[in-house]
Amino acid sequence: MKNTRKSVMLISSLLSAGIANHQNTFAAENVKTSKPNFIIILADDMGYGDVGVFGHPTIRTPNLDKMASEGQKWTSFYVAAPVCTPSRAGLLTGRLPIRTGMCSEKRRVLFPNSNGGLPEKEITIASALKTAGYSTACIGKWHLGHLPQFAPNAHGFDYYYGIPYSNDMDVKETNNYVSYVTSPKIDYFNVPLMRNSEIIERPADQTTITKRYTQEATNFIKHNKDKPFFLYLAHSMPHVPLFRSKEFENISLRGIYGDVIEELDWSVGEILTALKQNGLEKNTFVIFTSDNGPWTLFQDQGGSAGLLSGGKGGTYEGGMREPTIIRWPGTLKPGVIMDMATTMDLLPTFSKLANISLPNDRIYDGYDITPVLFGTGKDPRDIVYYYRDVEIFAIRKGVYKAHFRTQPEYGSEVVTVQDPPLLFNLNIDPSERHNVADKHPEIIAEMKKILEKHQASVVPVENQLEK
Amino acid sequence: MKNTRKSVMLISSLLSAGIANHQNTFAAENVKTSKPNFIIILADDMGYGDVGVFGHPTIRTPNLDKMASEGQKWTSFYVAAPVCTPSRAGLLTGRLPIRTGMCSEKRRVLFPNSNGGLPEKEITIASALKTAGYSTACIGKWHLGHLPQFAPNAHGFDYYYGIPYSNDMDVKETNNYVSYVTSPKIDYFNVPLMRNSEIIERPADQTTITKRYTQEATNFIKHNKDKPFFLYLAHSMPHVPLFRSKEFENISLRGIYGDVIEELDWSVGEILTALKQNGLEKNTFVIFTSDNGPWTLFQDQGGSAGLLSGGKGGTYEGGMREPTIIRWPGTLKPGVIMDMATTMDLLPTFSKLANISLPNDRIYDGYDITPVLFGTGKDPRDIVYYYRDVEIFAIRKGVYKAHFRTQPEYGSEVVTVQDPPLLFNLNIDPSERHNVADKHPEIIAEMKKILEKHQASVVPVENQLEK
Repeated sequence: MKNTRKSVMLISSLLSAGIANHQNTFAAENVKTSKPNFIIILADDMGYGDVGVFGHPTIRTPNLDKMASEGQKWTSFYVAAPVCTPSRAGLLTGRLPIRTGMCSEKRRVLFPNSNGGLPEKEITIASALKTAGYSTACIGKWHLGHLPQFAPNAHGFDYYYGIPYSNDMDVKETNNYVSYVTSPKIDYFNVPLMRNSEIIERPADQTTITKRYTQEATNFIKHNKDKPFFLYLAHSMPHVPLFRSKEFENISLRGIYGDVIEELDWSVGEILTALKQNGLEKNTFVIFTSDNGPWTLFQDQGGSAGLLSGGKGGTYEGGMREPTIIRWPGTLKPGVIMDMATTMDLLPTFSKLANISLPNDRIYDGYDITPVLFGTGKDPRDIVYYYRDVEIFAIRKGVYKAHFRTQPEYGSEVVTVQDPPLLFNLNIDPSERHNVADKHPEIIAEMKKILEKHQASVVPVENQLEK
Repeated sequence: MKNTRKSVMLISSLLSAGIANHQNTFAAENVKTSKPNFIIILADDMGYGDVGVFGHPTIRTPNLDKMASEGQKWTSFYVAAPVCTPSRAGLLTGRLPIRTGMCSEKRRVLFPNSNGGLPEKEITIASALKTAGYSTACIGKWHLGHLPQFAPNAHGFDYYYGIPYSNDMDVKETNNYVSYVTSPKIDYFNVPLMRNSEIIERPADQTTITKRYTQEATNFIKHNKDKPFFLYLAHSMPHVPLFRSKEFENISLRGIYGDVIEELDWSVGEILTALKQNGLEKNTFVIFTSDNGPWTLFQDQGGSAGLLSGGKGGTYEGGMREPTIIRWPGTLKPGVIMDMATTMDLLPTFSKLANISLPNDRIYDGYDITPVLFGTGKDPRDIVYYYRDVEIFAIRKGVYKAHFRTQPEYGSEVVTVQDPPLLFNLNIDPSERHNVADKHPEIIAEMKKILEKHQASVVPVENQLEK
């Protein structure tokens, strides 16, 4: 708990100097409510096409489908990186992982023997919201550093319940990894389950983990019904090894992967029911998304990116565009939102909604997207950067995406430098099939300038993943 | 009109001998209503992934999305063939095109110089429903023979308004086909627009054709509000050349293809509104589907099969599985239906619902799917045959699909005989990526027996497409 306090104090002092930056101009007219609750439900390795309303034919997701029809289905919503650790760092800090040291070429994510983590000086959604009196909980997978100084409690979360890194880590025998994750048993993975800084179970019983996360989450909601709260529910599933509760065994036509998604869908239903039962529906912003695309390497045990190309680990759309649904009844007009946004936009957006000034001593890569949420104005985001580890592989500007480099998601060290870059019109050709580079030299030229300008904004920082 | 009468008389005489076949046991308990209206809305070359609720990120289909949430979204709904003419023959007759002579290897569809068409002795949904006193209209593309003896009026339709074959036919200069369809002008295609047997416009003004079909359809609904009717609204779009009304120009993020789909979606909204305004919603079964998969050859001007492989012309799922939505408020429980069905099931199903006996002098390939529609019983369909022209390329039995032959959709004469056949579990692997043939020799053996048995049921008939 010491770390939590220290962290909050640090932010408070930073905030005292706070002049809002461009994406945080606190015009009162768009703030629809004061101190709404925020819930982020994050799936792990779920694909763009793995939800009914995003087109899957054999996975049943009635709760997500209903959430989409009552809320907003976002079809161009991105993450900060195509793998776990940097994606989560981007989500919580509103900053590209390259600015926080949370990406690396050699080790794409943090491992149980890593000594690094999200630096203390970073502001997370939790630490920012704490300055406005929010109760905060992280339930689920963390993966931003398991040493105490990097743990959820050190980054603004009052409460933590979950696993500190991926559910396929601490593997019993490294050279049996593939057979272990595809035919898993609980004790193949010595992953700890933690409550705050205490290990309460090891190995974590992953069979009941989705259910237990859900119970923890609904308890947190109930106990905080009278004060503003932020709940970050980061499921460990459907990352391999796949586990689900007894009740969800063999219920999906899609096999075990479908069972797992259907349990997550059940979990979403439980969260929304808890909000309703506690009279919190109308004052709670809920977003469902995933940390990166499907791990297609695992075939039937990996998900589907739907009509998108690629998957986890890569910079084609399937790696970084996520099935995203936002619900806030009475405040958000239901519909399909095709504007671009990213998980990095959540920090500035939540800050705006909670009337918090973020310190202007750092670069934020997120934008306040309330104009799009409320339908009151233009999307402030016109660019998405597709980093693979420490390198930019692609840039989207408006409807166009230029791939400067390409590389298979996994299993190849070969980077192909694309010069001229491949160019796709993502609105017309979301599957990235028809390269139109030769028709648009002016856009290629513009993309190159954007790349240079962006790279100039990046200052070297300590690499946390190779520590 | 002579032909219409003759046709109806023929069916009446056939029906007088009518003993229901296996799929037409008229158990009263499942017939929820007597003589409901039926509307089939058929798109042309629209892909599985081209509807919002089937996963398209940049095509807006609010009316279809709403129709799906109020009705049933069918995710494993097939057509009888992956190209126009045989697919439509299968839909209207409930029989595989191989049984009606409506498929051919040399000419995959009918052309303006064809002398064949749907044989007079075939029973269509329209001619069957006429025996029960239905008013019938075919509005849109026919493509089952343009000579008078094959026209809609000769096949049970009281009224016809539309084009007799595809909108890319009667092309001005054959050797400019590709540039003409991709940069089209009205007068490149000398396609006639007909009202019954009369040509009322030539070339048809395709810019306003979707709008005019819609007006004709809503007029038909209004004029028939006091008696049972069957409306077959077979849009010419989004088959290339793509045209849309002034109001739909450049409204879609997806480009002209999206404009066209969004106008079709508008049209669906108009039909549903007309039903509501005339108090017919609760007594009308409406189905929306497509005749075959997207013509991916035309890249941005062709659609998307979403997560499915392949497209128009081929026997991978993308060629024959269609985005299908059924709505009948108050009678059908809304939901996602994952059971198999095909357009050939509509004739037996409508016959059941309208209490009509079909003659048992022929083989029907369709089943009465009311048990699935009403949720009262098991899907009677367990097998789908994937014909490419006159040959079976693949068979689905339950969750498995065996490809006995494969061939690129277009542009190659090379047929690859797959022995052992490729085997996919379509529920687990709807994208047909992971061949599991080596794991299931017993299923391969069963599939081979099904193939033989089916082939033994096929009796040679006159080829209508090569006449």
